[in-house]
Formats: sequence, C-alpha cells, structure tokens
Amino acid sequence: MNRVERLRKILAEMGLDALLVAHPENRHYLSGFRGSAGWLLISRTTALLAVDFRYVEQAGMEAPGFEIVHIKGEPAVWLPDLAAGNNVRNIGFESNHLPFATYQKLRTALKKHDIKLTPTENMVESLRATKEKEEIESIAAAAALADAAFEYARSIIRPGITEKQVAWGVEKFLRSQGSETVPFDTIIASGPNSALPHARASERYIQEKEPIVIDLGARVNGYCSDLTRTIVLGNGDGTFSRIYDTVLGAQLTALATLTAGMTGGEVDSLARAAIEEAGYGEKFGHGLGHGVGLNPHELPRLSPGSSDVLQENMVFTIEPGVYVPGWGGIRIEDTVILQNGKTRPLTRSEK
Amino acid sequence: MNRVERLRKILAEMGLDALLVAHPENRHYLSGFRGSAGWLLISRTTALLAVDFRYVEQAGMEAPGFEIVHIKGEPAVWLPDLAAGNNVRNIGFESNHLPFATYQKLRTALKKHDIKLTPTENMVESLRATKEKEEIESIAAAAALADAAFEYARSIIRPGITEKQVAWGVEKFLRSQGSETVPFDTIIASGPNSALPHARASERYIQEKEPIVIDLGARVNGYCSDLTRTIVLGNGDGTFSRIYDTVLGAQLTALATLTAGMTGGEVDSLARAAIEEAGYGEKFGHGLGHGVGLNPHELPRLSPGSSDVLQENMVFTIEPGVYVPGWGGIRIEDTVILQNGKTRPLTRSEK
Repeated sequence: MNRVERLRKILAEMGLDALLVAHPENRHYLSGFRGSAGWLLISRTTALLAVDFRYVEQAGMEAPGFEIVHIKGEPAVWLPDLAAGNNVRNIGFESNHLPFATYQKLRTALKKHDIKLTPTENMVESLRATKEKEEIESIAAAAALADAAFEYARSIIRPGITEKQVAWGVEKFLRSQGSETVPFDTIIASGPNSALPHARASERYIQEKEPIVIDLGARVNGYCSDLTRTIVLGNGDGTFSRIYDTVLGAQLTALATLTAGMTGGEVDSLARAAIEEAGYGEKFGHGLGHGVGLNPHELPRLSPGSSDVLQENMVFTIEPGVYVPGWGGIRIEDTVILQNGKTRPLTRSEK
Repeated sequence: MNRVERLRKILAEMGLDALLVAHPENRHYLSGFRGSAGWLLISRTTALLAVDFRYVEQAGMEAPGFEIVHIKGEPAVWLPDLAAGNNVRNIGFESNHLPFATYQKLRTALKKHDIKLTPTENMVESLRATKEKEEIESIAAAAALADAAFEYARSIIRPGITEKQVAWGVEKFLRSQGSETVPFDTIIASGPNSALPHARASERYIQEKEPIVIDLGARVNGYCSDLTRTIVLGNGDGTFSRIYDTVLGAQLTALATLTAGMTGGEVDSLARAAIEEAGYGEKFGHGLGHGVGLNPHELPRLSPGSSDVLQENMVFTIEPGVYVPGWGGIRIEDTVILQNGKTRPLTRSEK
C-alpha cells in the first residue's frame, strides 16, 4: 500500500475528509516534491500539490502522482474554494507545524464556507517512523558515509589543528564522497567545549589528553545518518576512561536489551540506570535517542517518559552522554535499525 | 538605544508586559545566543533566556546581558510560573512562528494563572529590517565574498561540467574564503533548468549558448548576502539578449528610481512595468526583492502590494527575472543598502 493510501486509511479512522500538509519533509515523503514551499491537500479521493509560480514546473516533474494546483498567496486565499470544489468539509491540519497566525486566518476563511479545521498531530510523522526498503538503503548509505567521515576525521586530527578546520575537512570529505548538504553542522568539540552537547566547532586548538567529541551525519536521497564518537589524542586521564566506560556500557546495554515492543521511555531508562549507577545521572541531560530519516531528528522519541512503541523497521539513534562542565563530555552514538525484533547497527565505527 | 530597549518601547506602546520569542534569528538578534533551541522572555524590566540542559553553558557565554533560566519541556510547563514570578500578566507571542499546538497548550496553562496571551506579528523582524553599523559591515563582507564566488564560478564553468560540480566548487570556495555555512543552496541552473526560479543544481551538463543562472550567497557573523547573475558560454541567441536587456533595464530602473519613503509595492511596480512593456509581464512571477540580514529572506518585502516603507539603512535585494518554460530564464540580483535616501550596491559583480 503506498504512502498516500496509508494516510487515507488514518483519515478515514479519524473521520477527516482531508489533510493539509505543509511540513517540508512530510510533503516530500508523500509527494516526492522537494521544493522549499508548497502545500498538499490529500482527501479520500484526490491528491493535490499546491505551489506558487516558482515551483509549478518542478512540482510536475517530481510529484507525478499529484495534481498540481498553481496558487498565489496563503491558504486562506485559495484553500476554501479548492476544498469546496473537492467536497472536503472537514480538513485536518498539522498542529505542531502550522503557525498560529496562518491557522487563524484560514479558520476565518473556511468558516464562511462551513468547512471545519481540525488539529492533528504526527499523522504523517508516524507513517515516516517505519521505513521501507528503499528508505533503509538510503539511510544505510548515509551511515556508511558517516563511518568513512569519522575515519577521515581521525586521520586529520592532530594537536594544534582547530575544531573548525576539522569540521570543514569532514564536511568537504562527506560532500565529495556523495553526501548531499549535511543534515546538521558537524560537531568537533574538544576539551571543555565537549561539555556542551550541541557545541559549534570553534577556533579552539585541539590538544592532547582531552576528550574530543565528533558528531557528524551524511544525507543520501534526502535521508540522514547520525554518528558520534569521542576520542583522545595520547592518553586520557582517569576521568576519561571512567566516563568512557560508563557511557559505552550504557550504550551497549541499551543496544543489547532493546526489543521490539518496548517504549522509547523504557529503553531510555535502561541506559539511564547504568549511568546513574556510576554516579553520573545528573550529567546525562538529554534523551537517549531519536528517530532518523528525512529529518535528522524525528519519531520515535527515546527519552524519559516517551510512550512511542519501538517497532520493526524503525531507525533511530542510541546516544548516551555524560557532560562535566569545565572538564568536558563523552557521547557515543550509533544509528541503528530494529529488525527481527532486535537492533542492528547501521553505523559501525570502532568505539 | 540597544535592541532590547527598542523592543521594550514597542511593548509599552502595545500595552504588553512581555514578549515571548522563539524564532531562532529573533532570539539571536536580541540576545546574542546562537544555539538551535531556547526562548526569550523580555519584559519591561527583565530579560530572560530559557534553555534546556544542552545549552545552559553556551547561553551563559553568548548572552551576557540575559538571565539564564534552565528549563525542561515546553513553555506550557515552565512559562506560567516564570511569568507570574516576574509580574507579567499579558504576554505577546510571535503568531507567525508559534505552532498552533504550542499556542493552545500554553494558553490553557496560562489561563489558570490569569495570564493573557496576545498574538503579535513582526515585532522583532521590524527592528531587524533597519541595520546597525556592525550589521552592515558583516553584510558587506558577505557581499564581497559573494562577488568573489561569482568570479570563481565564471572561472570554472565550461561546456561539459555539471551544475552540481559548479555548485559544490562555489560552496567550497565560499567556505574556504571565510563564509559560514552558506545561507541557501547555491543555484546553478542551465538551459531549460534556468526557467525554474528555485532550481536545484542537477547532474545536467552545462552547454554553450544557453542561459546559466548563478544564484549564491555567503554568511559572515550570521549575516547573509544574495547575488544572482545570468551568463552564457559563447553567444546567446536573440531571445537571450532581448530578455537580458529587459531584465537588466528593469533592475537598473528600480535601483536608480528607488528613494527612501517609497513602499516595497511601489518599487516592485517600477520594475514590473518595464518588464510588462517588453511583453514579458506574465513571465516575472515572483516579487522584486526581499530584505537580507540574519535570514536570507526577511523584511522589507518588495513585492506587489507590499506596504513596507523603505527606510535608511535597510538592506534588500533587487532581483527581477523572466522565465520561459522550455527555453530558460534570466535573473539579475544585487544586495543593496538604502543610504542617504538612495540605493548603494553591496554586491558589485559585472552585469
């Protein structure tokens, strides 16, 4: 069953006539259109892609299954007639993406036509969480590129090189090896900078005997990978090996114990308990992981309290970390897929 | 008067106690914080930057004028107490950015504390439209990089090279010359591809005698530039020179005629009239230009019907284009600043 048909099944279950889709990756996923602006209106019987002048030609080429509608202005201008003309009386919208102002103008305009506007959450995102064969191949290719880029980073890191020089070297390597624009800025965070889980690569000179967090990803056919390793030049101090072993132990525990049917919250607890036991519970401030696909961060959520159920062919990261302000941090992250009930790593760099 | 003080003046005029800021560039502009997640709450007397675990350290370093609040979860969880504790009873929010779902949960949570939530539009964006001295210097530096990158693109374009190879060459050049991550994907669009105003660089081989649209930008200290030239290898056909002269004439007319106090809509009409007169009115489907700053597209809008008044020290593009499906397109774009009542080009590549 294709993606639009799967969405229609959910529409029917929810009693909606149509879904209005604006989120770029949701639009791409359902239609194939990769332009930066446009709207889908998917009803039980029609699939429309509404774009302005700039994208009419591109839309026709990229979204052959969709009827292209040439629009001007915002949805409040063109959606009422389009919906009425297609017998759509109750439209779902993506409440986590549609800005309040757009919603409000649209609701006013639709009311005049007696058309209802209903908030929905994660309808397309939940479809996207489970990957198809070609999607898995793209992510696996992006994961292999990430592994190669990590090896490359290791080969150029030496005392006296700056974080920025390494990050830019990694990005050039990724792009020259076939990655599309990288899905997120490559993190090269050394010494105290590595205590910032989302550090930007800086002009800091990398030195021996300090943690260096390397967090990078590639993109192939729109699909992302996400990989983190933490290394040290020369010998790390006692703190380094103690924290490294703690983080690696937590990651391996989660990877080995995780089975299909567990919730993201349960898996997070597994890893978190291992880190708490080592006395670093307070220093692991982010979730254990997140889905990876067209977005570098998507469903499922593997974080405290997450009720997302982990299922066959979901792709996500497992990335515990411990961060000690002033000293530094250690994070180890792999992109994995859930198959035959167990995790299988897609990134495979040495750790 | 600093940026926060200018915002407070508008807050007072609008009878608001505070503004909740979530838009990344607005947050960066007001606070200096460049992390990818966080919220500002700016009241008449306090300036708070609320971030989660990942960003507490970075926030303290980048936003010295702000009090850092360590939060968990979404605003509905932490904002009511924070607002009440700071005597804030009426909070403005960015209605063009805040998703409907976030708004709705927040409104419910605030109601219990008798705190009002009021939609606002473009409060910070309108401050950002007029540039300060250091901002202009950053944009001018980004514009000079764009000019250099265009020269570089010209030097490597030859028959048989692909659009993607040129685009990647340009990006490497920009980054190696000091640009931060480029503000938008470099467009290299040749032959029929150039008829797509927002084409992506493809595997197409560039040939002689066809239009090649080169649209690129650099970023310095967060600030963008935006430059487009259209070239041809060898001699273009009669259509090429006719359309080129039409587009260039329209651009030069707009640049020469524009004066402070005109609206964006009026300037758009000036250029559009010139293109209509040449019989290509239907082929110029986008607006004449847009502001440039921390975002590659920001206020003011220079498009049909725009009432944005063009004022001293605003920076924006002037970029008419004519697109003929099947044949190709021609666009000529400069980033300019309005000073002493007239435009002064920041990008200066030959046209």
